[in-house]
Amino acid sequence: MLPNDISTWRTNQSIGRRVDELDTPCLLLDETRMTRNVTRLRTHLDALRVQLRPHLKTPKSIEVARRMMDSAAGPAAVSTLREAEQFADAGVRDILYAVGIAPNKLDRVVELRRRGVDLSIVVDNVDAAQAVAAKARDAGDRIPTLIEIDCDGHRAGIAPERSGDLVAIGRVLHDRGAELRGVLTHAGESYSCRSLDEIVSMAERERAAAVRSAQTLRAAGLPVPVVSVGSTPTAHFARDLSGVTEVRAGVFVFFDLVMAGLGVCATDDIALSVLATVIGHQQDKGWIIVDAGWMAMSRDRGTASQRIDQGYGVVCNGDARIYPDLILIEASQEQGILALRQGSAARLPALPVGAQVRILPNHACATGAQHDAYQVVRAGSRDVLAHWKRFSGW
Amino acid sequence: MLPNDISTWRTNQSIGRRVDELDTPCLLLDETRMTRNVTRLRTHLDALRVQLRPHLKTPKSIEVARRMMDSAAGPAAVSTLREAEQFADAGVRDILYAVGIAPNKLDRVVELRRRGVDLSIVVDNVDAAQAVAAKARDAGDRIPTLIEIDCDGHRAGIAPERSGDLVAIGRVLHDRGAELRGVLTHAGESYSCRSLDEIVSMAERERAAAVRSAQTLRAAGLPVPVVSVGSTPTAHFARDLSGVTEVRAGVFVFFDLVMAGLGVCATDDIALSVLATVIGHQQDKGWIIVDAGWMAMSRDRGTASQRIDQGYGVVCNGDARIYPDLILIEASQEQGILALRQGSAARLPALPVGAQVRILPNHACATGAQHDAYQVVRAGSRDVLAHWKRFSGW
Repeated sequence: MLPNDISTWRTNQSIGRRVDELDTPCLLLDETRMTRNVTRLRTHLDALRVQLRPHLKTPKSIEVARRMMDSAAGPAAVSTLREAEQFADAGVRDILYAVGIAPNKLDRVVELRRRGVDLSIVVDNVDAAQAVAAKARDAGDRIPTLIEIDCDGHRAGIAPERSGDLVAIGRVLHDRGAELRGVLTHAGESYSCRSLDEIVSMAERERAAAVRSAQTLRAAGLPVPVVSVGSTPTAHFARDLSGVTEVRAGVFVFFDLVMAGLGVCATDDIALSVLATVIGHQQDKGWIIVDAGWMAMSRDRGTASQRIDQGYGVVCNGDARIYPDLILIEASQEQGILALRQGSAARLPALPVGAQVRILPNHACATGAQHDAYQVVRAGSRDVLAHWKRFSGW
Repeated sequence: MLPNDISTWRTNQSIGRRVDELDTPCLLLDETRMTRNVTRLRTHLDALRVQLRPHLKTPKSIEVARRMMDSAAGPAAVSTLREAEQFADAGVRDILYAVGIAPNKLDRVVELRRRGVDLSIVVDNVDAAQAVAAKARDAGDRIPTLIEIDCDGHRAGIAPERSGDLVAIGRVLHDRGAELRGVLTHAGESYSCRSLDEIVSMAERERAAAVRSAQTLRAAGLPVPVVSVGSTPTAHFARDLSGVTEVRAGVFVFFDLVMAGLGVCATDDIALSVLATVIGHQQDKGWIIVDAGWMAMSRDRGTASQRIDQGYGVVCNGDARIYPDLILIEASQEQGILALRQGSAARLPALPVGAQVRILPNHACATGAQHDAYQVVRAGSRDVLAHWKRFSGW
């Protein structure tokens, strides 16, 4: 299903342009790396015989989404109803809105389902379940709903040992007009793991929490067709997914410095970068000033708590080769300061005013969200192959 | 010049809606506070007999811009050429692009100037000055250019004591085809001040650096009509601006928690907030989960280094009254965790699923940039008065 014919991607905006002709800052997407990243996770999950439900909150682009999904119709996960609506417009039909539902969003859910989208939603409390069931009865539509499980104390969800609460929510959904579609959990704490062994353990903990919760509900006579888990780290390092029906992951498509810091990928796997131009220097300080600040990179400092703090990003040349120890140490709104990391013995590269660099981001979702398009390139070439639009908002 | 007739703002999107009918998360703008904030800075600068050149990188909206500027034609400062182009389309004619120019942006500069915009630009090195002069000769347009002065070691610019470098840049511009419009500096370090006295000193340091640099250039026989300084903290606390011709500031229009932490404003002056809906709880932890995460707030943690760390924002009720000690302690992409700040003796408010809160941001520029519109309200009312579009990109 992954389209590989470049000719189908070309758009008017991109024909004939080269990377060094692009206005900066802008967002580059290395299609070679992206394809390799998608293949890697698919191969792993195929071996574990489990379905991938890619999380489209990372790309927010139908062209990227189609390269992540099994088919043009899905399945997929999203983080906003805007994403659900945009991807539905582009033909995606199996969509999980994977954030606990607010009652005031149910009209939009029903409206999307009326358009023929199998949109499922999430709750983790009886109040929300009752609001869903009431809306389902009003609309004459058994809105499919998953119960969120808390596997690691990270955020939302019902801990698996709270079996009474779990069954109470399941009963409200199942008995009062909605459809209990299953359970869902997300090992958000996997982003804080300190070793691959810890990620392996976290993946098992995520699986066990979801499966135990499903068993609790089934023992109460409730149907649980879907058992959904996922985070990019655990998706890659799960060794056994018995009892799980699907895995959600998003960042895997691009990877980023946080994932590299965790050991989930190498820096050479990172498919996103921000193209920037040198605008000046503070020679006495060893600073190179570029036209990419936090507006282009995002304020995400996800590597600050990792073993190696990458500042606002790792700096590469125009061919995506990393300059040793050169990072974006500080970011204003539209200016960034490149410098060698503290204690480095490397030499500051000669980058005159007008030179271009590519900066690898801490967090693909956050950096992507600052841009309205991807400029698509392939490894080893400076031709811009396509211009793929991104959307934003709620 | 500030339009006060609400009837002129109404748009189809907003007529008849109330705040509690808005989709969440979204960005609220309190017009009452904004107007007060603009009046405050204008009154201060009028007393100092200096021109305000509002920085439109904060609002990125023509409706807000018109309430900041002297006239519909400006003057104004911007941080991107996209801003310059968008505001030029809306009739702004005197625009300073206040980020050091990259040579590859000069074609867009010339194009905008051909449309009749008095667009001026900034350099801090001879290489960029030579590129500007060459483009000016090619285009037959003496592109007006300011030299950036480094008053505090914060980022870019020529330190005032580097008189030889200053004059060399001035000579290239003036003698080889461009127009030396003046000097510009920005006391970025004022954001790190620990007291109002320090801000007062920083304002004087900013003024002195700009004026000294202007004198150096004038002593070399070069014209320096414009002496431009500014940052929101120094703009409010400058006591004397002798020798300065204009002050740039942007955040002053909305204010934010960083400015409140500095003592530049009170929390009740903050005109921006993010409207969010409660989607769940973790009662044993004292957590309230809302549908606003870092995508709605930005990843900006500007208060983390201040005396009081406000997390990702301070939480208010629907009438913008602050809940004691309730802050957004953690943010995922589309979910946030509200909790009492550590050590608080306050009581967690009862906020059931579906309840709405307003969250004051750390940094108005960063939070605003996550949204494509403002929902305009006035103090004491829950009616949405207008829907003002924002733009983004470069």
